Amino acid sequence: MAQRQLDPTDPTTAGPAGPVSCDALADYLRAQATEFLRALRLHRETGTGSAGSPGEEPVDAARSLRHAARRITGTLHTFRPLLDPTWAEAMHPELAWLSGTLAREHAYAARLERLLLALHRLSGVTPIPAQSAGGSRAGATSSIRSAGADTVPAKATASGTAGAPTAPPDRANLTLGAAKAGALLERQLTLARTRAHSAALQALGSSRFHAVADNVAVLASEVPLTPAASTTPTNLRPLAAAAHERLCDAVTALPLLVAGHPYNAEALVHGLSFDPAPHPQDAPWHHVRLLLRLSRYAHEVLASAEAQVDVRMLTAGAALNRHRDASEAAAAAAAAARTPRIAPATAYALGVLHADQRHEVEAARFAFQQSWEKKALSTR
Amino acid sequence: MAQRQLDPTDPTTAGPAGPVSCDALADYLRAQATEFLRALRLHRETGTGSAGSPGEEPVDAARSLRHAARRITGTLHTFRPLLDPTWAEAMHPELAWLSGTLAREHAYAARLERLLLALHRLSGVTPIPAQSAGGSRAGATSSIRSAGADTVPAKATASGTAGAPTAPPDRANLTLGAAKAGALLERQLTLARTRAHSAALQALGSSRFHAVADNVAVLASEVPLTPAASTTPTNLRPLAAAAHERLCDAVTALPLLVAGHPYNAEALVHGLSFDPAPHPQDAPWHHVRLLLRLSRYAHEVLASAEAQVDVRMLTAGAALNRHRDASEAAAAAAAAARTPRIAPATAYALGVLHADQRHEVEAARFAFQQSWEKKALSTR
Repeated sequence: MAQRQLDPTDPTTAGPAGPVSCDALADYLRAQATEFLRALRLHRETGTGSAGSPGEEPVDAARSLRHAARRITGTLHTFRPLLDPTWAEAMHPELAWLSGTLAREHAYAARLERLLLALHRLSGVTPIPAQSAGGSRAGATSSIRSAGADTVPAKATASGTAGAPTAPPDRANLTLGAAKAGALLERQLTLARTRAHSAALQALGSSRFHAVADNVAVLASEVPLTPAASTTPTNLRPLAAAAHERLCDAVTALPLLVAGHPYNAEALVHGLSFDPAPHPQDAPWHHVRLLLRLSRYAHEVLASAEAQVDVRMLTAGAALNRHRDASEAAAAAAAAARTPRIAPATAYALGVLHADQRHEVEAARFAFQQSWEKKALSTR
Repeated sequence: MAQRQLDPTDPTTAGPAGPVSCDALADYLRAQATEFLRALRLHRETGTGSAGSPGEEPVDAARSLRHAARRITGTLHTFRPLLDPTWAEAMHPELAWLSGTLAREHAYAARLERLLLALHRLSGVTPIPAQSAGGSRAGATSSIRSAGADTVPAKATASGTAGAPTAPPDRANLTLGAAKAGALLERQLTLARTRAHSAALQALGSSRFHAVADNVAVLASEVPLTPAASTTPTNLRPLAAAAHERLCDAVTALPLLVAGHPYNAEALVHGLSFDPAPHPQDAPWHHVRLLLRLSRYAHEVLASAEAQVDVRMLTAGAALNRHRDASEAAAAAAAAARTPRIAPATAYALGVLHADQRHEVEAARFAFQQSWEKKALSTR
């Protein structure tokens, strides 16, 4: 505890900076609510008009919408004791529902991009600059977009509205097995994405969504604090510290010692197991990813008053995003291999692809361990 | 060069120890020739008698025979200028032929063991103590042998003579795909091993082999040095230094910077390429493996006079043995996947297995880089 007091980037420290008042919380929530409404307006303007420019705007607007919704949800969670309980309890599940619905379409698109990029890499064909490989979802999306320029026209023009899908790399120059595996994955994940797209459109037109939007509009002007929080001086730091504490406890439970040994081959241990369910060994890492995000948002609340950004938290978070993406991509490859009547060459390519993505899972854990240990060391 | 002078384990240094005379070379060759004849006698005694003990002896004898043949071959190569040229030129290809013939059967057996162990690991089933996974050939062989005790009786009893095959782990507790892949690999590699076994038996009964054995018997009593080497004082160090120099030059050409970054995903880059040939990226590593072995044997010649063993050279060599084994195992998995009419589940398991072994290739390069850099650092 005494050690942690010395970390200037740790939100749990009182340190040289004094207490942070509830004004910072109100400012942050208002700013995120405003951003949510801006993104929603932009999304409606660019998304629904079929004559409009079919460029980046719908994707950017959908992303901003997701980001703001996630930040409001996370902040409600961490600073719940300072917020009007009836309002917070009503708001929280609705925002979580919205974030989840909006995220799904994006996730399928990103997963397909990741898998097709991996197939290209495995075939020794590099369709795009190397820096994008293994990056975060956002990184993969933008690199695909630039790759799409010289392959097929963006599918966004065809499908139109909300969260326009970006073009995956083409399947030319792949071996037969890799090409067939790519086609199969494209078929399955495009179908899933299309369904998620319809679900998102339906959600955005629902009365449930309009109620959420109205609530966010109120939040943009008036943050409902508890009477105690709005009248007596309150310090935000203890609640942020508790979030950080939960993160640290969860990290302590991770097998970081194994993860810190490169090529431990741990991630593939159940690569051919009977259990078709998601890897149970991945769950604690996914949990830390969520706790890290909550801690980061709590830090943003404080930092909006102090203008600090912890780069190492971002690096650690990026590693866990990559962990989640690779884990889900590996599962998608394994699921595709269970499609009836596929050719052996297709199944072989999917097996290589699955192992490759589990390898990425292991690499992401190593990257997280490295950034976390660096963080721990530098606070000493 | 000045830097290298400081390395006490480097055979290129004159260092505190003075020149090493040709006596050390003659002693070494005589000792290896004696070991060759001892192993041959043991092999004949234990191998051909069908009533004899079906234990470790034939395997040990075959291994000793290979080891001695390799050491004589390597020493003839490095110290060629000091040896009678007619004799050395006649002897060298014959010993290389013998080493190659004897090594093949062992290689197929080791490859099958490696692949079946990997299938067990990938299925989340651990049939043997963890320390054996990813070890050298010798390590894998011995661990299999202990695992075989509680599975199937050693096949050695059935097949009888030279280099008795050891029992691979059983295929129970594997998923259908993994079990079928294991059965396929076992069928293919056992066939190859049986053919290699017959070839080795045939070779050991041939007049060509008897000529080699006669020559080695001469060597055990009388090493044919050049007239100059036997009459004037000669230092062995410059020739050992040249071997070490060749090794260092070849290592410099390796992509060690990439290999030193864990999870560089380089080894799988051509995992699904059109080219069914062995990975061209592996060749320079295989070459370094051979040069390292030559340098190690040259060092043994000097060390027999000085009783020094360089553990780091052994570690680096073990990493490159693992590299070669994993590279060949990955190729065997890919070859098995090209068998007509296999089930998709079999092909999928072979794809995962191939990628897993290429992952091992990458891990072995990382291990080599680490041990080599440690060596380089410690000489400064």
